[in-house]
Amino acid sequence: MIDFRPVLHVIGWLLCLLASAMMLPAVADIMAGNGQWMNFIAAGGITVVAGLGLVLGTWSNQKKPLNIRQAYLAAGLGWLVPCLFAALPFALGNGGLSSVDAFFEATSGITTTGSTVLTGLEGMPPGLLLWRGLLQWLGGIGIIVMALAVLPVLNIGGMQMFRVEVLSSRDRAAPRAARIGSTLISVYVGLTALLAAALWAAGMGRFDAVIHAMSTIATGGFGNYDSSMAHFDSATMDLIVFIGMILGGMPFLLFFTLLQGDWRRVVRDQQLRWYLGLMALGSLAVTLWLIDTQDFGPWTALRHGAFTVVSVMTGTGLVTMDYSYWTGMPVAVLFFLTFVGGCAGSTAAGIKVFRFQLLFANAVVQVRQLLRPHAVMVPSFNAKPIPKDVLTSVMGFIFVYALAFATLSMMLALLGLDFVTALSASASAISNVGPGLGAVIGPGGSFATLPDLAKILLAGGMLFGRLEMFILLVVFVPSFWED
Amino acid sequence: MIDFRPVLHVIGWLLCLLASAMMLPAVADIMAGNGQWMNFIAAGGITVVAGLGLVLGTWSNQKKPLNIRQAYLAAGLGWLVPCLFAALPFALGNGGLSSVDAFFEATSGITTTGSTVLTGLEGMPPGLLLWRGLLQWLGGIGIIVMALAVLPVLNIGGMQMFRVEVLSSRDRAAPRAARIGSTLISVYVGLTALLAAALWAAGMGRFDAVIHAMSTIATGGFGNYDSSMAHFDSATMDLIVFIGMILGGMPFLLFFTLLQGDWRRVVRDQQLRWYLGLMALGSLAVTLWLIDTQDFGPWTALRHGAFTVVSVMTGTGLVTMDYSYWTGMPVAVLFFLTFVGGCAGSTAAGIKVFRFQLLFANAVVQVRQLLRPHAVMVPSFNAKPIPKDVLTSVMGFIFVYALAFATLSMMLALLGLDFVTALSASASAISNVGPGLGAVIGPGGSFATLPDLAKILLAGGMLFGRLEMFILLVVFVPSFWED
Ligand SMILES: [K+]
Ligand SMILES: [K+]
Repeated sequence: MIDFRPVLHVIGWLLCLLASAMMLPAVADIMAGNGQWMNFIAAGGITVVAGLGLVLGTWSNQKKPLNIRQAYLAAGLGWLVPCLFAALPFALGNGGLSSVDAFFEATSGITTTGSTVLTGLEGMPPGLLLWRGLLQWLGGIGIIVMALAVLPVLNIGGMQMFRVEVLSSRDRAAPRAARIGSTLISVYVGLTALLAAALWAAGMGRFDAVIHAMSTIATGGFGNYDSSMAHFDSATMDLIVFIGMILGGMPFLLFFTLLQGDWRRVVRDQQLRWYLGLMALGSLAVTLWLIDTQDFGPWTALRHGAFTVVSVMTGTGLVTMDYSYWTGMPVAVLFFLTFVGGCAGSTAAGIKVFRFQLLFANAVVQVRQLLRPHAVMVPSFNAKPIPKDVLTSVMGFIFVYALAFATLSMMLALLGLDFVTALSASASAISNVGPGLGAVIGPGGSFATLPDLAKILLAGGMLFGRLEMFILLVVFVPSFWED
Repeated sequence: MIDFRPVLHVIGWLLCLLASAMMLPAVADIMAGNGQWMNFIAAGGITVVAGLGLVLGTWSNQKKPLNIRQAYLAAGLGWLVPCLFAALPFALGNGGLSSVDAFFEATSGITTTGSTVLTGLEGMPPGLLLWRGLLQWLGGIGIIVMALAVLPVLNIGGMQMFRVEVLSSRDRAAPRAARIGSTLISVYVGLTALLAAALWAAGMGRFDAVIHAMSTIATGGFGNYDSSMAHFDSATMDLIVFIGMILGGMPFLLFFTLLQGDWRRVVRDQQLRWYLGLMALGSLAVTLWLIDTQDFGPWTALRHGAFTVVSVMTGTGLVTMDYSYWTGMPVAVLFFLTFVGGCAGSTAAGIKVFRFQLLFANAVVQVRQLLRPHAVMVPSFNAKPIPKDVLTSVMGFIFVYALAFATLSMMLALLGLDFVTALSASASAISNVGPGLGAVIGPGGSFATLPDLAKILLAGGMLFGRLEMFILLVVFVPSFWED
């Protein structure tokens, strides 16, 4: 039997953190003078009771590190359980959402997906809007910590390539690990503050600036207006968010490297180059299409084309215009970019740029190998050879990704969604993008109209994608539960 | 410099074969008493002159086996050049097709894709219909020979798993290799004859029976009527073709094993089991959908549901009903099955069942490995461990497949095709299926309306898919052309 106590202990602390976070929207609603603050106090109360109960009930004087199975359980439940409690403020009170909608909205927030069942955001109380922003922001820093400290150690989907020795060894160099951790959190907080300040300086209201800064750096996508960034209709704000999204999809460890003055390594980083290159290519294609077929002026086309491409590729999902009426090429470009996502160790989800680079390097070697079947050729990444086990790990990751995408698509289609809606909803959920393609769930639509079962499946897909899938799959290995 | 002479010698012989094949439709047209026979005689004349010229011009008394680069060139040009000459009968004469259409139709035939630019097939001269059937039939046997004798030796996309020692060694056991080869050709001819006889017995006209038998066993999809199998409206004929398509997608070497009396090995074959299992699952899903949403009776639903699933998965493309009005789940199922294809060593294209099995086995091992990072675990297939280089080879294959699919989709969308048409045309071409999804290129539509450039790109996609891609990619390695 697995000893669940250390796992529940971790969950307990996370719930306490979540409960404290609920106090902020409560304060916001009190200041705004509306009665919704009670929902946050009530939800916070329930959450803190559950959290403290778990923490105290599993208290032990022996502090042992989690073993590997406990680590998987903590990583999986550490995302799922907070989603359940984070749904409370949405569900409580007069006019609250249904349980399914609340769970969908909370999961969409924490996983930084940003699909929403809410419409009429303009009229929502500030507490609710702040809660949505906070969920994404906490989810964003959560995934960065996971990507740095947990995924590489657990060998998830080739993330072992990014093992930072200092962070994986437990005993030695703990102070340095703590310094990297606290630096990254400071970078995250700092970038959020910078973005908020810039948006405010550009003329956005203070509250909106904070929420959109949080949503941007987390590549989350929740905004305070149904029309998203289009509400502001400001090229300056679009540019600020555009830069913020690019930063959000960058490998956060590079910021640490940069702070240490090692800018050469940042410039040379292969993943960063491909990431920026792909965005540039996609932006160019969509911009030209907008100029050619929609009679946009070059600057307007660039503004909306580049923003949309970066928003979809990083999986942010903020929009400057409703692109659901676009047809043909840009639709295909956006659809395929959905799968790419950002860099490893960023807040973005998706397959991630480095996995495509590893596959590409392998494919090139495969082709070259055909001519010299007996030569030993090893593909490389960032000037280092790629170990075979990393390649098979990446291959397993992408296969499961494709299988999950196909399965979820077919299940959604079975529930009555049309082909394009089903395909793009599935891709958007697993890659944590947010909006889909088409009129139903596109930037102009809402997920509210989908059947309840579809919402539950999509929320499951979001968690599955956010947790790089394998964390959830491992519990299906029978030996996981054996002694 | 590569010595092209042995390559051109092979091409020359292939053209001579093609020219002889052109005599059959000429005879058919003469018997039917129409003037189209002249086109075949003229095309045959041009082709035989080119063929004999190449054969004689590169004649040499030294018979050396091809070296590896020559083998790639022969494999690639051995498909491309015949497509060009096979287009002649379509383009010649009064009322002939444009060059692009003729090339599209010929390539679609030889690659056993079965997409057509022709409408009003009912009124076409028998020679033309026979020529379309012959192209598919020759392409089908061509790919079986390639899959047995060429691809495994060249290590293409994991096909080295299917290396038959007898066939790869040149010197020893040559008589046995010849026996396997001639047995398989006899099986192919025999199955075609059986299908034709069965269709004829079921009431189909003799000419139609022969064409549809050739088209079925080659998983080709060209028929003699715009409405394909729906023209006959016969459940018995549908059943015969249904069985024929399943046979066409089976590993042909298994027929040899079966003839040797080793039926146990056939029953135990993992690839065959998954192949049949996937078809059964897909058929069940679509059948239930037809009963539930379209008020079909159970037998009618099974007849059309199972036929359509098997036709799309094996990449045949014959249809018993126009499924372009289907929505939701069956569309998604058919879309994803397009990529699966049939078994290795069959006439079907696509990624092929065994590659999914290798990926699945690898993914399962990856998940199990997470719990025991230091254990040595090796995925297996057909009770044999999968070598690492086969896995990386398969990974390269699928990556290039996905990249080609995405690139072709985006290029088609750029040419003005809508999203679903572009996506399904791309998948259908690369997987050699034939019809796509939607009204334009679905079973009720025609490829004739597409822009010329789209047709050329699609024909390229067909060849790329048929040649398992890597055969064409290898020429982009600079060292291919160096000494
Ligand atoms: K998002
Ligand atoms: K076909």
